[in-house]
Amino acid sequence: MTSHSWQGRVFIAQSLDGFIARPDGDLGWLTDPPHDEGHVTGHDGPEPPPGYEAFMAGIDHLVVGRGTYEKVLTFAGWPYAGHHVIVLGSTLAPGVDERISVAHSVPEVVQTLEGRGARAVYVDGGQVIQEFLRQGLVDELVISTAPVLLGAGIPLFGALGTDVQLTHLGTSYAGSGMTSSRYRVKH
Amino acid sequence: MTSHSWQGRVFIAQSLDGFIARPDGDLGWLTDPPHDEGHVTGHDGPEPPPGYEAFMAGIDHLVVGRGTYEKVLTFAGWPYAGHHVIVLGSTLAPGVDERISVAHSVPEVVQTLEGRGARAVYVDGGQVIQEFLRQGLVDELVISTAPVLLGAGIPLFGALGTDVQLTHLGTSYAGSGMTSSRYRVKH
Repeated sequence: MTSHSWQGRVFIAQSLDGFIARPDGDLGWLTDPPHDEGHVTGHDGPEPPPGYEAFMAGIDHLVVGRGTYEKVLTFAGWPYAGHHVIVLGSTLAPGVDERISVAHSVPEVVQTLEGRGARAVYVDGGQVIQEFLRQGLVDELVISTAPVLLGAGIPLFGALGTDVQLTHLGTSYAGSGMTSSRYRVKH
Repeated sequence: MTSHSWQGRVFIAQSLDGFIARPDGDLGWLTDPPHDEGHVTGHDGPEPPPGYEAFMAGIDHLVVGRGTYEKVLTFAGWPYAGHHVIVLGSTLAPGVDERISVAHSVPEVVQTLEGRGARAVYVDGGQVIQEFLRQGLVDELVISTAPVLLGAGIPLFGALGTDVQLTHLGTSYAGSGMTSSRYRVKH
């Protein structure tokens, strides 16, 4: 793996068939699912995965791809307030957004994180997650799975050079039908 | 959906990235995973998914593809003893194996199941599961997820004509790191 002094963390939701968005980027299936009182009620478990607020409270930096960056620009609010965001996107103009800095390669991201003394880095967006997994830069994952099969979309995971073995740290689920599992990557 | 008087049930294991076997069909990652005492210990939940024995006890028929059939022929024992097995595979010669019957299309499978008065049908193998999901012939799924990313392999899910909405009925996990979730298909 690529040596790093910080923890790379993934926190993301997928459909049961492994998509983080529809082919056109739509997230309505996730943000506005059909109501269903039949879902089993919640379970927190002995070591439940953190919710989004608790997860974000433990983060000091984010790395996202240009696709994720452009997606969150369409949200009502900027979800990364208070954190330094590095956008990995080679065609993005520097200085276009003061809330972010731009890196043109994974080594450049790593160099920036090391230089800034990063400790806990939120690695977000399908392509960045896949690239960081390939390079051994992800240490922990919280994967939430929605109770729906989409059949097509933008995949969460992709090709790897070698197996990534995981330690299962906890699973919880909510009345929404979402299940969340937390894993530690075995390097 | 295609009308059917029986319940179609899926019971299958995948890697966290959605593969049911490596590209060459290998299952060692599932049957012989690395030992890891770090996995959180078990949770049965209020309505845990059935284990394999309990699941099989509720089944009277199976439908598998030719790939799955040929795979299970390599196992030490025939795993479907006591159940009528329909192999969906157009190139398989009839009468080649007295434990099975052969169907050449999904309508032929459905006709056979209806004719035999099937009540609970184990739908197994990636291609058969995908085709039965597309045709609305799956009513319940138990999906077990192993704590590993393979990066490549034979996918569990595939293209669909429309979303498949699910009701989450329960999730359990074991000290092996496997999590199992049970879903009912909303037709």
